Amino acid sequence: MVQNMTYDELILRIIILLRDGKIRDFRSVIDELQPYDMAFIFKEMPEKHRARYLSYLTVDDITDMIGELEREFQLVVLNKVGKTKATLAMNKMDNDDLAQLLEEMDEELKEQLLSSMEASESKAVQLLMNYPADSAGRMMTNRYVWIPQHYTVKDAVVKLKSFAEIAESINYLYVINESKQLVGVLSYRDLILGEPEEKVQDLMFTRVISADALQDQEEVARLIERYDFLAIPVVEENNVLVGIVTVDDIIDVVIREADEDYEKFAASGKDITFDTKAYVAAYRRLPWLILLLFIGLISGSIISYFEDALKQVVALAFFMPMVSGMTGNTGTQSLAVVIRGLSKEEMNKKTIVRLIFREFRTSIFIGAVCSVLIAIVSIIWQGNALLGFVVASSLFLTLIIGTMSGTIIPIILHKLKVDPAIASGPLITTLNDILSLLIYFGIATAFIHSL
Amino acid sequence: MVQNMTYDELILRIIILLRDGKIRDFRSVIDELQPYDMAFIFKEMPEKHRARYLSYLTVDDITDMIGELEREFQLVVLNKVGKTKATLAMNKMDNDDLAQLLEEMDEELKEQLLSSMEASESKAVQLLMNYPADSAGRMMTNRYVWIPQHYTVKDAVVKLKSFAEIAESINYLYVINESKQLVGVLSYRDLILGEPEEKVQDLMFTRVISADALQDQEEVARLIERYDFLAIPVVEENNVLVGIVTVDDIIDVVIREADEDYEKFAASGKDITFDTKAYVAAYRRLPWLILLLFIGLISGSIISYFEDALKQVVALAFFMPMVSGMTGNTGTQSLAVVIRGLSKEEMNKKTIVRLIFREFRTSIFIGAVCSVLIAIVSIIWQGNALLGFVVASSLFLTLIIGTMSGTIIPIILHKLKVDPAIASGPLITTLNDILSLLIYFGIATAFIHSL
Repeated sequence: MVQNMTYDELILRIIILLRDGKIRDFRSVIDELQPYDMAFIFKEMPEKHRARYLSYLTVDDITDMIGELEREFQLVVLNKVGKTKATLAMNKMDNDDLAQLLEEMDEELKEQLLSSMEASESKAVQLLMNYPADSAGRMMTNRYVWIPQHYTVKDAVVKLKSFAEIAESINYLYVINESKQLVGVLSYRDLILGEPEEKVQDLMFTRVISADALQDQEEVARLIERYDFLAIPVVEENNVLVGIVTVDDIIDVVIREADEDYEKFAASGKDITFDTKAYVAAYRRLPWLILLLFIGLISGSIISYFEDALKQVVALAFFMPMVSGMTGNTGTQSLAVVIRGLSKEEMNKKTIVRLIFREFRTSIFIGAVCSVLIAIVSIIWQGNALLGFVVASSLFLTLIIGTMSGTIIPIILHKLKVDPAIASGPLITTLNDILSLLIYFGIATAFIHSL
Repeated sequence: MVQNMTYDELILRIIILLRDGKIRDFRSVIDELQPYDMAFIFKEMPEKHRARYLSYLTVDDITDMIGELEREFQLVVLNKVGKTKATLAMNKMDNDDLAQLLEEMDEELKEQLLSSMEASESKAVQLLMNYPADSAGRMMTNRYVWIPQHYTVKDAVVKLKSFAEIAESINYLYVINESKQLVGVLSYRDLILGEPEEKVQDLMFTRVISADALQDQEEVARLIERYDFLAIPVVEENNVLVGIVTVDDIIDVVIREADEDYEKFAASGKDITFDTKAYVAAYRRLPWLILLLFIGLISGSIISYFEDALKQVVALAFFMPMVSGMTGNTGTQSLAVVIRGLSKEEMNKKTIVRLIFREFRTSIFIGAVCSVLIAIVSIIWQGNALLGFVVASSLFLTLIIGTMSGTIIPIILHKLKVDPAIASGPLITTLNDILSLLIYFGIATAFIHSL
């Protein structure tokens, strides 16, 4: 019956069960729900029912649910359930979720919460928090099962059964030697198919792909995507197994990275969602806009430098927005290719040289087509062949320059370990604006007496 | 030994083994490799060794490897291995990969290949190809194990063992009733933990989250991400199970969708990677650039309309790039928030109204800050308070208009089922350019005699 209910029906049913105190029926509904559903229901239900809802949920439910909630709601839940239940839930939470939750808390509260937790769990979380942000170590979990290499299939199944609860979502067993070094991996499927007395080390896969704990999360995502893994083991130097990273966290990384690239690219400011408050959104966007305002003024001052030419031939102003706009557009097109490529390709010298030459040839094609077009248009519109030549030849040159700066600048920034997405947008815009206006008015000034 | 070899070392070793005809040693190296590795080695090895490499690989190896190769290489492999091996590999390939491969082949070759395949496999692929592009049905696989609901754990294990090969990467069993309707799901882990005589229907999870075969792949990705699933069952109307979609394919969807959003946003043209040829890249970018060229000319013609004002006060030209640039920038910022949000949020009336008002308030904050700034700058620079007022008040108005068009236009396009990412970039740019110049010169003309 619960199977086909909509969220609204579910919420209504749960509220009725809470009101009537029917904990058994409540339980049978909850057992059919996913953590995301429990979290969604918590957020959507009227506030007055929340305390009771939480009191009816088990520690396991609360642990699962917290993983699906936004930070602000996580804190609400931890506050409302009371210290004992909160501590129990924290003990069971995924380490990476917990580390993220604790990270932004004030020191005192964090210490207090950590000290109330089980020593082993609290130690594990603190270990995670020692790894740099965005590293594999920071997002790994200790909820996996490892076995010594001398185990038989039967031993492994026994161990798996006793760790059933924590072995929930991963379907590999990681095999280590006496020095805790990762030596192999065995899937649950191989375990099911193996004979009880077979040795794990004869069944296991030994060329294990692993991530380094200090490796960037984006690189780990690339490994998981490339190999179609469900989880990847994380090792420290000397190949000592310290945790695993699961595919569900990797999907979040991929989405977050795409959002970040997008935000930087649009200079739209970090983390503006539909829920961000207006003044916060303004505050996050303004630095970019003020920067772009001054960049616009630089163009203005270049134009003012050519004031005399402009006074003599006002028609020069008509083509100005088009020339600088096109330079910007072609630069953006190249930038997009480079930035998305940087996250996927190996950037060796050969690739870079090939890319630069490709973009150069592309810009010649594009420049030729666009300048012929604009020559025709401007001759028809302004009836002035020389003006047409000035506009067309400047456009040809600026399109090449725009493309090259959109290609080369992000590569240089990448080599300098500056994030090219964030830095090259304004840099390329400024440079392209300045160069396009200089070229346009430069060529125009050379011919001004004939125009 | 193979465990720690670099790709270069691996390729060298494999070439030596191929040359010396040591098939046994070759086998023991290959057994330790991932499909991605085999594909990488194939692509990187000198061409003269490829035929022998393929002849040493088993049909299973070739099947795995093909899944990791780009289309052009897939065709090379299928050609080189000969018809028998090619057909065997195609029988074993993931249906979705095969459908993708066949899709772009010419009709005749496709028919020929399909008819040489096993009837059941060829039927399964053709079934897939009947679903629309980008639908869940198109990317599903039939490599999963289903069991009737009356099975015991023991029955299920027996069935799983006999389907070992196809049950490779997924760790759920799907439970169906007599009418082939999906009624539950059971994880391998539950199977390992269950007692042999227990009934599957007592262990299984019944509130199964499934995707509709016609559902958009992006929505399926959202489900998998939300619920942290490794695979999701796909049903047709009446809840009949027709296949499953796995998380590794979903990661590809997420990456592809992000790339597409990015491409559209930057108007950079579809599918331009580092390997695209120069003329192809030019061909894909040119439509956008030509469109933007004419948009630039629209601005130019508006300026030409205000030629007299510009002749009288040339300084108006100095602020022109800044005003229209800023309008474009603020529009882009809003557009980015809306477009990324559209793929995540439920767009109901309440959300939309709230978003529009948020953006409106944001634009007032932004407009106020920027116009005060520009007033100060222009008074200092041009020493003309009235000019400062004209520039500041136009900027204030155009920033509000830019923000609103960047918010409202993509929402309207989304409602009209037009992809807002692709259509709203140029539309918003054009509209913002026209409006910003009209406002700027309009206000300027009103005060022209005092300037």
